[in-house]
Amino acid sequence: MASQYPPSLRFRLPAFILFLEAAFILIFYFCFTYDHHKQHLQQHPTLYAAFQDVNVMVILGFSFLLAFLKRYGFSSTGFSLCLAALGVQWALIVNGFLFHFSDGAVEISLQSILEAVMTVTTMLISVGAVLGKVNLMQLIWMAMVELTIFAVNRWVAVSIMQITSHMSLMYVHLFGAYFGLMVSWILYHSSLSLRVEKESSKPTSDTFAMLGTLFLWMFWPSFNSVLITNTKEKWVAVCNTYLAIAASSIAAFSISVATSRNGKLKMAHIQNATLAGGVAVGFSASIIQHPWLAMTLGLAAGALSVLGFDFPKKCRDPAIGIHDTRGVHSMFGLPSFLGGIIYIILIVVNSWENPSLSGYSALIEIGALSLSMALGLIGGLITGFFLTFKCWKAPPVTKYFDDQAYWEFPNLAVGY
Amino acid sequence: MASQYPPSLRFRLPAFILFLEAAFILIFYFCFTYDHHKQHLQQHPTLYAAFQDVNVMVILGFSFLLAFLKRYGFSSTGFSLCLAALGVQWALIVNGFLFHFSDGAVEISLQSILEAVMTVTTMLISVGAVLGKVNLMQLIWMAMVELTIFAVNRWVAVSIMQITSHMSLMYVHLFGAYFGLMVSWILYHSSLSLRVEKESSKPTSDTFAMLGTLFLWMFWPSFNSVLITNTKEKWVAVCNTYLAIAASSIAAFSISVATSRNGKLKMAHIQNATLAGGVAVGFSASIIQHPWLAMTLGLAAGALSVLGFDFPKKCRDPAIGIHDTRGVHSMFGLPSFLGGIIYIILIVVNSWENPSLSGYSALIEIGALSLSMALGLIGGLITGFFLTFKCWKAPPVTKYFDDQAYWEFPNLAVGY
Amino acid sequence: MASQYPPSLRFRLPAFILFLEAAFILIFYFCFTYDHHKQHLQQHPTLYAAFQDVNVMVILGFSFLLAFLKRYGFSSTGFSLCLAALGVQWALIVNGFLFHFSDGAVEISLQSILEAVMTVTTMLISVGAVLGKVNLMQLIWMAMVELTIFAVNRWVAVSIMQITSHMSLMYVHLFGAYFGLMVSWILYHSSLSLRVEKESSKPTSDTFAMLGTLFLWMFWPSFNSVLITNTKEKWVAVCNTYLAIAASSIAAFSISVATSRNGKLKMAHIQNATLAGGVAVGFSASIIQHPWLAMTLGLAAGALSVLGFDFPKKCRDPAIGIHDTRGVHSMFGLPSFLGGIIYIILIVVNSWENPSLSGYSALIEIGALSLSMALGLIGGLITGFFLTFKCWKAPPVTKYFDDQAYWEFPNLAVGY
Repeated sequence: MASQYPPSLRFRLPAFILFLEAAFILIFYFCFTYDHHKQHLQQHPTLYAAFQDVNVMVILGFSFLLAFLKRYGFSSTGFSLCLAALGVQWALIVNGFLFHFSDGAVEISLQSILEAVMTVTTMLISVGAVLGKVNLMQLIWMAMVELTIFAVNRWVAVSIMQITSHMSLMYVHLFGAYFGLMVSWILYHSSLSLRVEKESSKPTSDTFAMLGTLFLWMFWPSFNSVLITNTKEKWVAVCNTYLAIAASSIAAFSISVATSRNGKLKMAHIQNATLAGGVAVGFSASIIQHPWLAMTLGLAAGALSVLGFDFPKKCRDPAIGIHDTRGVHSMFGLPSFLGGIIYIILIVVNSWENPSLSGYSALIEIGALSLSMALGLIGGLITGFFLTFKCWKAPPVTKYFDDQAYWEFPNLAVGY
Repeated sequence: MASQYPPSLRFRLPAFILFLEAAFILIFYFCFTYDHHKQHLQQHPTLYAAFQDVNVMVILGFSFLLAFLKRYGFSSTGFSLCLAALGVQWALIVNGFLFHFSDGAVEISLQSILEAVMTVTTMLISVGAVLGKVNLMQLIWMAMVELTIFAVNRWVAVSIMQITSHMSLMYVHLFGAYFGLMVSWILYHSSLSLRVEKESSKPTSDTFAMLGTLFLWMFWPSFNSVLITNTKEKWVAVCNTYLAIAASSIAAFSISVATSRNGKLKMAHIQNATLAGGVAVGFSASIIQHPWLAMTLGLAAGALSVLGFDFPKKCRDPAIGIHDTRGVHSMFGLPSFLGGIIYIILIVVNSWENPSLSGYSALIEIGALSLSMALGLIGGLITGFFLTFKCWKAPPVTKYFDDQAYWEFPNLAVGY
Repeated sequence: MASQYPPSLRFRLPAFILFLEAAFILIFYFCFTYDHHKQHLQQHPTLYAAFQDVNVMVILGFSFLLAFLKRYGFSSTGFSLCLAALGVQWALIVNGFLFHFSDGAVEISLQSILEAVMTVTTMLISVGAVLGKVNLMQLIWMAMVELTIFAVNRWVAVSIMQITSHMSLMYVHLFGAYFGLMVSWILYHSSLSLRVEKESSKPTSDTFAMLGTLFLWMFWPSFNSVLITNTKEKWVAVCNTYLAIAASSIAAFSISVATSRNGKLKMAHIQNATLAGGVAVGFSASIIQHPWLAMTLGLAAGALSVLGFDFPKKCRDPAIGIHDTRGVHSMFGLPSFLGGIIYIILIVVNSWENPSLSGYSALIEIGALSLSMALGLIGGLITGFFLTFKCWKAPPVTKYFDDQAYWEFPNLAVGY
């Protein structure tokens, strides 16, 4: 039986996407101009190479990371591109109004696009948690709401808590992971636990996912350092990130073999946990002064990520009821939380060692971490509830996922 | 039955390739030296990162973009590398004699190699139109002739029409698309319409093609800006290209779902039309002053590209008789033509607003666009006719395309 | 029958990896700090883009190059990442103590990490020769020993022979290839010649390998130039490498078709020989003053590589008994040896033309080449012997390589 959509949804989706783009263009028409200030133009040549690294991470790395499902690789790369293209424009608008609005106009530059691209990361992380349980229309709504809440989060952090713009963007992993998990919790469906077969990968799809992982691995130092303006801190952040991510890879390989039943490496562990070091060291990359500290943090994050991947899987579905397709909790949530805690500890230790520094800043960081966590959790809950409305849903279709149908609206939650 | 070539062709191809390379080396021996002028050396560090972006687009992006055919992905990546390696050397020679020849010698530098790599794009676009209908020997001849005609085209534009070198290279898409279409028209074969099965893709080959698409998508801003020397114009071109290509992706997704019979996204649409924005904005990227204009142009180009992909397919084969394997007309031809028209309109509008600017420059641009179009069409016709000569042809072989035979001379036009 | 490991090996491997990482962290704790000297910080912005190119080559290029075996692609990408992550840290330690140790501490910077990443290349090349014949534990021991011997090799070259640090790193290919071949010779097993089926590739795995090849191809100019400090020499090295690698690709295509029995291109030839030009020109990239010379060297290296790939294969297994999985002898060994000879000839010719130059330097270079060759051969022999000890070996398992088992310890040498 061929899969068919009711005409209403078939035309609603393209009309909705076109309407969004038209709205974006109108907003740009009325409020956005290019920023030609000299100090920005001078930074661009050195900024551009790192901008492209981050761009590769977001457009290619995250979309291929999601390509691991054997019947879904294709949709995930396509949907990621669509979401990223929409998301960057929406993030430019929201960030523009919150951070660069003056005299009725918003001035944007390469730096604005870079910040928008980094912001989009948070949404792509959430997509990893809900992958296969929602259709493209639900994903687009989720993306818009999430990027708005995250921009408000950043605005509070930067404008009220006086946190640097670079640091406010390091919360993308924490926010995205918990937002996605909450959406996934609300969308939880009792039939999910039965369809494990659909979640399996195959060597080809896993090699594509490995390609995504490697691009994220290689360019993570750029992500953690591109917005740092102090030269010395910038290069320390690059080196710390490289060492942390190398150490977390070692942890991933070691713990994966140790915890498996038959001595095999588990590919999902490698894809997830090798990146944990980069996530964990994000907050403190510029203030860690000793290579060994970055390596220890990376090792701990990698170990935590592998253990966190397997532990909840066993007791998850019946008890808590959160289905986490890509394992974003262990990949981004736990390492980021660990990194945030370590960062606060480092600030406390620093203020003990240098009495001139105010201990007050540790409180600020605790506040910023809690704020991101709280907004991620609450925002995800509300968004998930919003996505359960009937109007977005594709009707249940028999034999939804046949091999030929790999470019339909995927909707893993709908039964066979 | 094993596929066999007559010994004449088997030895003619390697001998021909080696002869070409020997001839290149002799030409370099007599006429080429490195350019050690200080002003070039100083530009190189900032040029190099963007050079590598363009290099990735040409060597990896275009070759994987052509990897979408399920029985052909391998040959297309291999042949593209061979053609690119030969093409860059030939383009260096032709460009060298036309642009950098003085006192009996040609001085080359990193900038020369960059221009040669960008020139090779035009040939790889044409390859997309004739893919599977010609063998490697025919492809090499086509590449040599095409690069020569395009270099003459550029020389007329730069030396006589006083167009900048950057702008003259933006015609690669237009020229390549129409050149390839004309070659394909001449090589048209009535049996083509019957073998639709061979043209199909499969998820793995399409994911490889998506990889090529994403690399082109990400580095298109580098392509449209690398040769611009004015700092302000350079960074405006980067931002405009990014926004245009994001908007054209949205158009591709929306129109693809709207025009499909069953509400599925069509992978070929996504691969083709997401890039249309980058192509269309190429000409005017440095003079568009408002983000919304770049986005609108990208949206229009993406929509045009999807519609142009499907419309002719239905009425194409019997009526016009052009078989366009990769869909280069909708991917590069139409968006580039649209971009050229918009560029001329922008120049006319600018000269109205600033009476100091001469309206004469619009005429020049109309002339340059017509010249590229005319040379592409006429050059393609002549080259196509030239390629129909018996001497290049592989004999018709039964069961040519079996799965094991993926590294033979592919020749989709020869029957089963 | 499911493949099982005795518990001893299953727990020994993860414990060993964790112990290594803990030891690394301790060494870093006691001896390593970041180098904040101003002259290093100023170089970083221009260094960083080329650093990322080299990083992509080592982390992605070499690991996907090894992904050509159809039942092994997955393991090879995973193992390469593990070895690279361990290897970079170990190389940092060994290089640090040999080159940057003063006052009881080692100062590291981005430049140190870059040199460590380049050093790791030598180990990944050796892995190509022994791929599938050893398990991960043996690979890690091999990596540690090899990186140590190579660092001693470099220390002798730099400190005693007064060779530049850049030039000492160009021996990675020669050293790695002969080291790996010797290890492979010792591990040779009479059953190897029977299992040709396991060594076969398939289109998908070969396309992944092609992806690795293309990344190496594109960024080889960065590898050959990143550590050159003289501006003029740096950009000449970039151009020479680009031209040499283009010419060697042409040689690969031509000779591959000429030597095949049925006129087909052989994918393994293309993957191997296209890179030969970059390897061969490594030594002399900065002193070759004429483009034609680089192209001729590339052409010769490519031709030698294809011929060297096929010739020994026919007479290899029974007579010499070296099994070279990836063909590293023709890919890196022969071209690098040719490049070394040509470099010495160029130095002799230069010292004839400029009597002011001492002919003594040619002797030094002969010594450095012989030293690398000798240390590679002897080191490989000893390491290979060391790896035959029972304690590392996985027990022979029936039906080891089934499709589902792609993430076990691979051990091609163990029979069906």
